[in-house]
Amino acid sequence: MNKVKDYIEANKDRFVKELFELLRIPSISAETAHRPDMQRAAEWLAASLVEAGADRAEVMPTEGNPVVYAEKIIDPKARTVLVYGHYDVMPVDPRGEWRTDPFEPVIAGGRIWGRGADDDKGQLFMHAKAFEAMCATGTLPCNVKFMLEGEEEIGSPSLYGFCARNKKLLKADIILVSDTSMISMQTPSITCGLRGLAYMEVEVTGPNKDLHSGLYGGAVANPANVLARLVASLVDDEGRVTIPGFYDRVRELTPSERKAFNKAPFSLRTYKQALEIGDVAGEAGYTTIERTGVRPSLDVNGIWGGYIGEGTKTVIPSKASAKISMRLVPDQDYREISKLFERHFKAIAPKSVKVRVKSLHGGMPYVAPTDMPAYRAAERAVKETFGKKPLPFYSGGSIPIISGFEQILGVKSLLIGFGLAEDAIHSPNESYGLEQFYRGIETILLFYKYFAE
Amino acid sequence: MNKVKDYIEANKDRFVKELFELLRIPSISAETAHRPDMQRAAEWLAASLVEAGADRAEVMPTEGNPVVYAEKIIDPKARTVLVYGHYDVMPVDPRGEWRTDPFEPVIAGGRIWGRGADDDKGQLFMHAKAFEAMCATGTLPCNVKFMLEGEEEIGSPSLYGFCARNKKLLKADIILVSDTSMISMQTPSITCGLRGLAYMEVEVTGPNKDLHSGLYGGAVANPANVLARLVASLVDDEGRVTIPGFYDRVRELTPSERKAFNKAPFSLRTYKQALEIGDVAGEAGYTTIERTGVRPSLDVNGIWGGYIGEGTKTVIPSKASAKISMRLVPDQDYREISKLFERHFKAIAPKSVKVRVKSLHGGMPYVAPTDMPAYRAAERAVKETFGKKPLPFYSGGSIPIISGFEQILGVKSLLIGFGLAEDAIHSPNESYGLEQFYRGIETILLFYKYFAE
Repeated sequence: MNKVKDYIEANKDRFVKELFELLRIPSISAETAHRPDMQRAAEWLAASLVEAGADRAEVMPTEGNPVVYAEKIIDPKARTVLVYGHYDVMPVDPRGEWRTDPFEPVIAGGRIWGRGADDDKGQLFMHAKAFEAMCATGTLPCNVKFMLEGEEEIGSPSLYGFCARNKKLLKADIILVSDTSMISMQTPSITCGLRGLAYMEVEVTGPNKDLHSGLYGGAVANPANVLARLVASLVDDEGRVTIPGFYDRVRELTPSERKAFNKAPFSLRTYKQALEIGDVAGEAGYTTIERTGVRPSLDVNGIWGGYIGEGTKTVIPSKASAKISMRLVPDQDYREISKLFERHFKAIAPKSVKVRVKSLHGGMPYVAPTDMPAYRAAERAVKETFGKKPLPFYSGGSIPIISGFEQILGVKSLLIGFGLAEDAIHSPNESYGLEQFYRGIETILLFYKYFAE
Repeated sequence: MNKVKDYIEANKDRFVKELFELLRIPSISAETAHRPDMQRAAEWLAASLVEAGADRAEVMPTEGNPVVYAEKIIDPKARTVLVYGHYDVMPVDPRGEWRTDPFEPVIAGGRIWGRGADDDKGQLFMHAKAFEAMCATGTLPCNVKFMLEGEEEIGSPSLYGFCARNKKLLKADIILVSDTSMISMQTPSITCGLRGLAYMEVEVTGPNKDLHSGLYGGAVANPANVLARLVASLVDDEGRVTIPGFYDRVRELTPSERKAFNKAPFSLRTYKQALEIGDVAGEAGYTTIERTGVRPSLDVNGIWGGYIGEGTKTVIPSKASAKISMRLVPDQDYREISKLFERHFKAIAPKSVKVRVKSLHGGMPYVAPTDMPAYRAAERAVKETFGKKPLPFYSGGSIPIISGFEQILGVKSLLIGFGLAEDAIHSPNESYGLEQFYRGIETILLFYKYFAE
């Protein structure tokens, strides 16, 4: 291990310099204007992986953004690790709240600042550099494959088909993913549960054109008022989703499971302080970590309608819309939930408006067993680099494709992420700590060592 | 009258050509970027009024957009008419829904299409051209003053002060205003009631930054969900505003007043068909024309928060906002209603969020007596040009400055507007019928004749 550690020490500044090149590419998958940037990021990664030691690396086209595939096969009989990551990033708005340019990364306070610094360019690049270090020092103990996609933030629409078409190519013993967070640097954790996701868009249409709110106000249903009513009614006063059938398949924890679950260190005071909120809010009868870890939820991700510019406009808008997503837990099925949502939303709309409901994307909840060899290897690796045995952690987030991998490829995923809450992924001023980055590389190296044993 | 009618017939095409010049100036008062256009429109109008025959015309500065003042005094002992109008227009969004450029007027189907074609450039220009025709033919029977402002669509913030500073200059027997509509060309009407307006903006803030909806969803109050709940709660299932005290000063019509009021021709079927709505909606127990004419209302004019771009973003927004306005009826006071709104909105907000409430502008309801000389003169003029005695009409709209005129100048206003519902003011594809324009000019000429008698 000393040889490879020395290699990392000698090259660590270059690693970050290289990562900056990748961070500068504004590969926002949700915005079609960035289509050329997706190709550029993919080509940059393929070249980088060949440079790192891959036998081959390809930018493979899909119906959407390309997938970067690379591999190094040291021995057909050795264990094979398939590294998954994504080079696409979230949109940056509200742009005005960024203290630095989201696509011109800087280092300040021991952290890398920029969109994708953590999610997921920073995290996937740890794998590329750990791989380079093992190749360069002749210490790679497993076959390695990389599959880096460009559509994770929009629900990986093309990756399902890609996996189905490339089952043999993607054959592996474990899928290794760093796209999650730890509880803290002092309380390392490995994610063994992810929530599923059903992401919907609704549109409420009233009159066939915007109307003068004086001439019509009080006599015509205002789509923005109606939308507010419909959205408000989706969650009751107890914080429970009101869609009929929504909770039917939710697996309830046993009292002892709940007790164990709530042992994770958590300070409500610190939580509220960090977010500057007067109080938390959620489903009655559950703790905050239960609410995000093992309970489903419903959130408005965006709402718009009418005049949203400066000053005033006395208008009854013709349309109002919202993006609404639900986080799901085992054994909810996003396809069923999307249908229940659509049926319910249409059923509660008054006759005075028309509604349209669209399912934008979705994914299944995922659970990783803590007794598989990869989990044990990761546990040892984390314990060695962080000085503490990691806790199994149920994240509230979703990586829909993870359950897809299991269904299509029949391979489990190990979610060993090094993010922290303070990284502010999906928010303005995303960052990633240099210590997270370097300690992540170190942990990944040890994972390979123990996984190959 | 023949001489002046001949003059109009000989010059009618030029009148429209001149109006097009005014319509081409994008004088949107709500958008500060258009500040230079306000000045341009004012200067154009001053020059046009001098050309039309005014003794003097000035662009008078205010704290905001300038006021165009012009006058022609034929005899200090003659009656004086003060023409009020506004050269500012509404914003044009959603711009994509315009079939033609809002600021490049065209004639099609006997109508002028463009922003301001009716409201209020088309309507105020009828007065300028009627004035020109009377000057050119030596038939002007009254003193005439013009006061054309550039802030009506944002609540006339500077005009109150302007009036207070220029009481002597603005001395008149009646204020003549064409900024309203008729029931139809077959059922002419004169507006004798206007609703008041209280226009508010609310902002709900939750966490101090946008959050990942997976990691936090279900545990943190989402400002967009909370805003929907708060807004939804402002109107109950019976269509009544829930703000305590809101109805305290509302003047209820007597049964016989209601009966008279509902005699105005109105077809619910045509109304619904024109708007393409499945049903009307509003306060239980009132008819559609009562709901807009004599009952107050509450409408969301704009709502926004979170990700409203293409595709998906799994975010809990830090903030969500809405513009909400209330139409008021006698004897509601917009200052009191704005305060009641603010107090109520803050009272119902949960501890998990912070709310800010701002009053953007407001105005009092207005009632014009149908027995004043100017009303009688207008009644005769309309009867002559439309072939039918006009109905007194209660408009749902608001022109806050009208009640201001009465308070500050002590002068009543006569609201003789020639707009129609199909003009779609404040909406995309605003238009004004050429017949409305020409018949309006003719009616105005007759008004002067009868008013001077």
